Amino acid sequence: MAPQVSRRGLLGGGVAAAGVAGAFVTGRATADPEAVLEQASARSASYAFRGAHQAGIVTPAQDRLHFAALDVTSDSRDDLIDLLQRWTAAAERMTKGQGAGEIGPVEGSLDLPPDDTGEAIGLPASGLTITFGFGPGLFRDAEGRDRFGLADRQPEALQTLPHFPADNLDPARSYGDLCIQACADDPQVAVHAVRNLVRLGFGTASVRWSQLGFGRTSSTSTTQDTPRNLFGFKDGTANVKAEEEAALGEHVWVGPDDDPRGDWLAGGSYLVARRINMTIEVWDRQPLGEQERFVGRTKGTGAPLSGGEEFSEPDFEMPGRGGPIIPADAHVRLVHPDRHGGARMLRRGYNFVDGSDALGGLNAGLFFIAYVRDPRTGFIPVQNAMAKSDALMEYLKTTGSALFAVPPGVQPGEWVGQSLFA
Amino acid sequence: MAPQVSRRGLLGGGVAAAGVAGAFVTGRATADPEAVLEQASARSASYAFRGAHQAGIVTPAQDRLHFAALDVTSDSRDDLIDLLQRWTAAAERMTKGQGAGEIGPVEGSLDLPPDDTGEAIGLPASGLTITFGFGPGLFRDAEGRDRFGLADRQPEALQTLPHFPADNLDPARSYGDLCIQACADDPQVAVHAVRNLVRLGFGTASVRWSQLGFGRTSSTSTTQDTPRNLFGFKDGTANVKAEEEAALGEHVWVGPDDDPRGDWLAGGSYLVARRINMTIEVWDRQPLGEQERFVGRTKGTGAPLSGGEEFSEPDFEMPGRGGPIIPADAHVRLVHPDRHGGARMLRRGYNFVDGSDALGGLNAGLFFIAYVRDPRTGFIPVQNAMAKSDALMEYLKTTGSALFAVPPGVQPGEWVGQSLFA
Repeated sequence: MAPQVSRRGLLGGGVAAAGVAGAFVTGRATADPEAVLEQASARSASYAFRGAHQAGIVTPAQDRLHFAALDVTSDSRDDLIDLLQRWTAAAERMTKGQGAGEIGPVEGSLDLPPDDTGEAIGLPASGLTITFGFGPGLFRDAEGRDRFGLADRQPEALQTLPHFPADNLDPARSYGDLCIQACADDPQVAVHAVRNLVRLGFGTASVRWSQLGFGRTSSTSTTQDTPRNLFGFKDGTANVKAEEEAALGEHVWVGPDDDPRGDWLAGGSYLVARRINMTIEVWDRQPLGEQERFVGRTKGTGAPLSGGEEFSEPDFEMPGRGGPIIPADAHVRLVHPDRHGGARMLRRGYNFVDGSDALGGLNAGLFFIAYVRDPRTGFIPVQNAMAKSDALMEYLKTTGSALFAVPPGVQPGEWVGQSLFA
Repeated sequence: MAPQVSRRGLLGGGVAAAGVAGAFVTGRATADPEAVLEQASARSASYAFRGAHQAGIVTPAQDRLHFAALDVTSDSRDDLIDLLQRWTAAAERMTKGQGAGEIGPVEGSLDLPPDDTGEAIGLPASGLTITFGFGPGLFRDAEGRDRFGLADRQPEALQTLPHFPADNLDPARSYGDLCIQACADDPQVAVHAVRNLVRLGFGTASVRWSQLGFGRTSSTSTTQDTPRNLFGFKDGTANVKAEEEAALGEHVWVGPDDDPRGDWLAGGSYLVARRINMTIEVWDRQPLGEQERFVGRTKGTGAPLSGGEEFSEPDFEMPGRGGPIIPADAHVRLVHPDRHGGARMLRRGYNFVDGSDALGGLNAGLFFIAYVRDPRTGFIPVQNAMAKSDALMEYLKTTGSALFAVPPGVQPGEWVGQSLFA
C-alpha cells in the first residue's frame, strides 16, 4: 500500500501514506486512497545531492526552510575537513529519505546513542535539499589571522557585507563561518536535517543562529506560481529562473576566471542572507493605493502600475497624476536591473513569523536569500539603492545579515567544499 | 484547470494548482497534472466553522499551528462583544477560504486599507480551523475585580494553573485573556488567519504571545498515524480520538451540570497550553535503551517495553532486569489513566523550533495543547505526577503556560462565546 519510502527506521508499512491522510480529509470523510498515495508519492520526491551545482539553488523552491549559521570552534584544519566529509555523507543519505547515519535511529545497540535522532522516521524525503556555504570568518578571524591555511584562497568578494542605511543588525542573528540551508516540503524533515548535521558538528562547530521559514517568497522555476510575502504582494516576479540557463551563467554561477584566489568557487555562487522584519501592523493601515505605489505593482495580479500582467515590463516613463505612474521611489523602479548594469538575482527567500514582539506586534517578515555570481555587482549596489530611497523601507528593518560562498556541486567520490582544500 | 477555490482575490485561474506543483517535481520533471489537482483539492478541504462544538478540537489535527494569546485592553463590555462578533464573521469567512472581510484584499477602494491583508490570495482553505478561548483574566483582573460583569460566570475550574515542579515560566509566554488557535495544512493560511483576527482586535485586544508549530505531535483521529515529537518518539498514542464518542463526552466536553456558574460552557472544553522546551542536544547523547526506558516505549514502533505493538496496553508488572521492564519513573507509567482515576486528554500539540538559544542549542520542543473536560481532574494531577517523578523531566523545561475555557460551537445566527454574555 505504501509508496516507495526509503528512510531507515520505517518499521510499519503504510506509515507514510497514513501520515499524510489528514490533509485529504474533508469534514469527517476520509479521501480517496489513491489521492493519499499521490500525495505521499509527491512527498517522496527527492533531489540528487551530487551534481555540477549544489541542490537547493535552482531546484524548485520548496515550501519550508530551516537555515543555520555555525561558527567553527575548533582550530584544526583536519577537524574542519572531517566535518565536511561527515556532512557530505549524512546530507546525501538524508536527501534520499534515509537516516543521518549508517545505522539509523532505532536499529543500533541499546547501549549507544542512535546515529539519527528519529523524528523523521516514516517521513519521506519530502524534496529535501541541503546546501552548504562558507563565510568570511572561515578564512580569517576578526583580527585577520589565517585560521585554517585558507586565507590566500579567500575570494575578493567574500567579505562581511557593508553597513546599509537602516540596517539594525543583531550580531546574534548575523554572520557565521558555515551555513546550512535545508529546504523541504515538510518542516519536520528540514528541521531533522539541520539538527542532525549540527549534532555531527559537536566539538567542531556550533550554531550561531538559525531561522525557520515557510511559504517560499520567490519561485525558482517557470513551473511555479509567484508566491506572496507578508505585505500580501507577489514577490520575486523578476527572479532568475532555473530554465534561464544563460542568465544563470551570467548572474548566479561563479565563473572559472572570476577571481584568481577563488577559482575553487567556480560553479558555485554567493548566498546573501538578510533577516528583514516587516512592521506589518503599520503596513496594514495603509490604503491599497499607497501600498501599490510603494511597490510599483498592483496587489492583485502583480502587474506593474503601468499596465499589463505580472510579467510585463514596467514602463517607468508612463505619466500618472503629478508624476510617473510608477513613482520615483517605488520598489520596482529602484531595484530594476536597468539601474544596476543589468544585475539580476536568484532569490530563494521565505516568510517568517517568530512569535510576537514586546509590543504585541508579530515578529515577522522576510528571510531574504539571494544567490548571485558576485555580491559586489549583484547585490550591494541594489541594496544600497533600495535602502537609500525605497518607499518600502519605512516598513522594513533588517535585523540579520550574512554572506556565504557556496562551493560548487559535489562530484562522485568528493565531499562538499573539497576544491577549497585541494 | 484549477479546482474549486473560493478565496477572494484569486485573480488568475490555476494559481492554486500551480502553487503546489513544486511538491510534485522529482528532479526536473514536472509531475502528472492529475496528481497536482489531487493535492490542490486536498488543500481546498474545509471544515465548517459552525456546529455543536468548535472546530479545531476533534477535527483531524492539521500539520501547522499558529496560536495567539491576547489581552483585552479595553474596559468596555460592548467592545468585547463587538470583537467576538467580528471575529465570528471573519473566522467563518476565512475557514471557507475567503478573505477576512467582505470586500477582500484587492477589490476595495484604493483610498482605504484593504479589509484583508492579502498574503493568502490564491491559497485554498487548507483545512483551516479557528478555535477561540477565554482565559481567567477575562473574568477578574489581577486584583480580583470584575472586568466585564462576567465574574459570577467564571467557572470554578478556570483559574491560573498552579506552579508545577520544574516550571520555569516566562510571563511573556504565559497567560492571556483570549486565545486563538489557528490550524491549517499551510502555515501561510494559519498565519494569515491570526494576523487578520489580531488586526480586527486593534484598540480592544492586543497580542500577549504567539507560537508557531508544525508536525502535529498527536493524532486526533484513528485515520491518522501517530506522529513523532522532537525526542524522535511517537507522541499521543493514548490520545482520545474523534471516533470515541463516549470518551469525548467523559473526558473532553464540559457537561451541562458540571458547574452551575459555568453552564454557558456546556459543549465546550478547557484548553491547556504549555510551551515545553526540550534539551534535545543532551537527549541525543543518551543511549537508545535509556531513551526507551525514560519513555517506557520502544522508539521504533512505539510499543510498550512490555511488548506488543503501539496500541497494546502496557504491562506494568512485567519484570525486567533489576525491576519492572517498564521502569518506575517511565513516562508511560506515571501518566497512565489507571493512576489518575481514568483521566484521559485529547492532545493536539505541535513541535516547535524557534531558532537557537544563546548557547547554540535549538530553542525547540513541544507546544503542548490538551483539551480536557475539567483541568482539576484531567490535567493538574497528571502534570503533578509527571513533574515530580518522570524520568523525562530532566530533558524538559516548561517556559509557557496558559488555561482557557473554550466555549461551545457557534450555532447559526450566533457569535462565538455568546452563551457567556446571555
